Amino acid sequence: MKKSHIVEKLLGDLSRYTPSNKAVTAYAPTNIALVKYWGKRNQELNLPMTSSLSVSLTDKGATTTLSVSAIAQDVFVLNGKPVPTTSVFYQRLLCYLDLFRPFKTFYFNVDIVSTVPIAAGLASSACGFAAMALALDKFFSWQLSSQQLSMLARLGSGSACRSIWPGFVEWHAGEREDGMDSYAEPLSVQWPELCIGLMIVSDKEKTIGSREAMQRTIETSELYKSWPQKVAHDLVILKKAIQEKDFDLLGKTAESNALAMHATMLSAWPPVSYYLPETISAMHRVWQARAEGVPVYFTQDAGPNLKLLFVDKDRARRYFPEIAVMQA
Amino acid sequence: MKKSHIVEKLLGDLSRYTPSNKAVTAYAPTNIALVKYWGKRNQELNLPMTSSLSVSLTDKGATTTLSVSAIAQDVFVLNGKPVPTTSVFYQRLLCYLDLFRPFKTFYFNVDIVSTVPIAAGLASSACGFAAMALALDKFFSWQLSSQQLSMLARLGSGSACRSIWPGFVEWHAGEREDGMDSYAEPLSVQWPELCIGLMIVSDKEKTIGSREAMQRTIETSELYKSWPQKVAHDLVILKKAIQEKDFDLLGKTAESNALAMHATMLSAWPPVSYYLPETISAMHRVWQARAEGVPVYFTQDAGPNLKLLFVDKDRARRYFPEIAVMQA
Repeated sequence: MKKSHIVEKLLGDLSRYTPSNKAVTAYAPTNIALVKYWGKRNQELNLPMTSSLSVSLTDKGATTTLSVSAIAQDVFVLNGKPVPTTSVFYQRLLCYLDLFRPFKTFYFNVDIVSTVPIAAGLASSACGFAAMALALDKFFSWQLSSQQLSMLARLGSGSACRSIWPGFVEWHAGEREDGMDSYAEPLSVQWPELCIGLMIVSDKEKTIGSREAMQRTIETSELYKSWPQKVAHDLVILKKAIQEKDFDLLGKTAESNALAMHATMLSAWPPVSYYLPETISAMHRVWQARAEGVPVYFTQDAGPNLKLLFVDKDRARRYFPEIAVMQA
Repeated sequence: MKKSHIVEKLLGDLSRYTPSNKAVTAYAPTNIALVKYWGKRNQELNLPMTSSLSVSLTDKGATTTLSVSAIAQDVFVLNGKPVPTTSVFYQRLLCYLDLFRPFKTFYFNVDIVSTVPIAAGLASSACGFAAMALALDKFFSWQLSSQQLSMLARLGSGSACRSIWPGFVEWHAGEREDGMDSYAEPLSVQWPELCIGLMIVSDKEKTIGSREAMQRTIETSELYKSWPQKVAHDLVILKKAIQEKDFDLLGKTAESNALAMHATMLSAWPPVSYYLPETISAMHRVWQARAEGVPVYFTQDAGPNLKLLFVDKDRARRYFPEIAVMQA
């Protein structure tokens, strides 16, 4: 099944493709998964093997402004600079927008302002494609539901489906082949005291992208076979922790889930490791802090940096003076 | 079931307990598992969850000399120095020898000379208890079969059952509750070109012993549920690699198995990690060497050091000038 078929299912009548003659703007926050999305059951439609649960970062995200291009090609600008046409990002945007052109020679002008720290392993494609889906909805006056927007964002990047909302968000894996039951939904709980501290241990470029890494893990890692059970278990516990505002339970569940995700990669072949020596040092520092009574946990995505989780801001901040703290 | 019951099953008639009036000496090599033993189904009898396969190191091991003690207590000497009575090693030896005293006030004089580098994560208890089982057999003139000796050694330390032989050795997990089918056997293949290079990255003491680590893994790691399948798969491949002297297949299988073992620990709670920053650096060096065409792989036990596997001695030696090379 092609993405274009899904877009047809979502949007229905093509006559709804009436572009705005004014520029429209939309914002979407980036999100940090506490129970990770790792592995696709459908690569074309970004359908996941398991459900996942994230928390959006209020003020880190992408603001996308969409208008009709003044020239006979798309124009993509990121933080004031043209996106190189040879970059992967350019190609992914181009393919995504191909799904929505009212006619073949319709071109977009896309201006993205991102507040996501560059190269920090913060999912910039998540907020990027979520903001794009929201902007497209405004631009064409579709008035889609959040559920539909979540699926539309997912076609751009899996975890983008969670960036449609602030706060805690669960992405239901779904079972359908067309993915029409694979979308995210917000949890009703607010927890403004929860903080995420970004601990950058290296700004070296990744040796392997997350798409390739997850695919290799699915194909070659025996331990990955237990991953769906691990996720199912962690989701139940994490939702309980959020409901009861039990920070230690949240931290423990998130840290264990992240470690298990990396564990599935280590047993892939060739092994996939996002661990740098500095990552291990950072992990030991977190464990040491906990041993000294500081309630802090970490999570780690497909990169060497850690994201610290804590509520008792000042204590963790004092212990890790170098972290950039972001409100969840 | 108690160890003493198993000893009775193995030795039969107690009248066979006739001690030698002369000192006897036995040697056993230490061994490096290529498919790991990780997890017990019975802690008292050291019965493993899975089979495992190791290679013995010809000239690294323990030579144990046994005689009747001249005083009314056991005397344990390791490399010329008395073993402190308060040490864990002393207690383990004492408990083990309790199984074999002809009468309650019979005391042993035990002199162990070990060529295993101290604190290098080379299983010193494996060769220690294997040499002890061999020495006891001589001392009491039991004339046990190698299979029986393997089981006797296992009661002292699980992996000791593999140290009864040189070369490649497979420990059959067995299914019986009394463990009478859980013993090791040698493979008939010789591969003298195979080398093990010991890469010591840290001599810091372990933060957690392997017994506790494997128990915690079994009890709390969701990914451990896939470990038995991983081992079953790796054992088939490794035996094929050994049979066909396919070094790359051997190296790849051993490295992947070791990574998967550590992966099961990472997803335990609290997480168990034997990774130090230096371990990760060392792993990256091995991967870099392979990328440059040097056929070298690693394995890692319950400690931070790596053991390198290679046949093309000079090239790997040149690449890793600091390693201590041991003949398999």
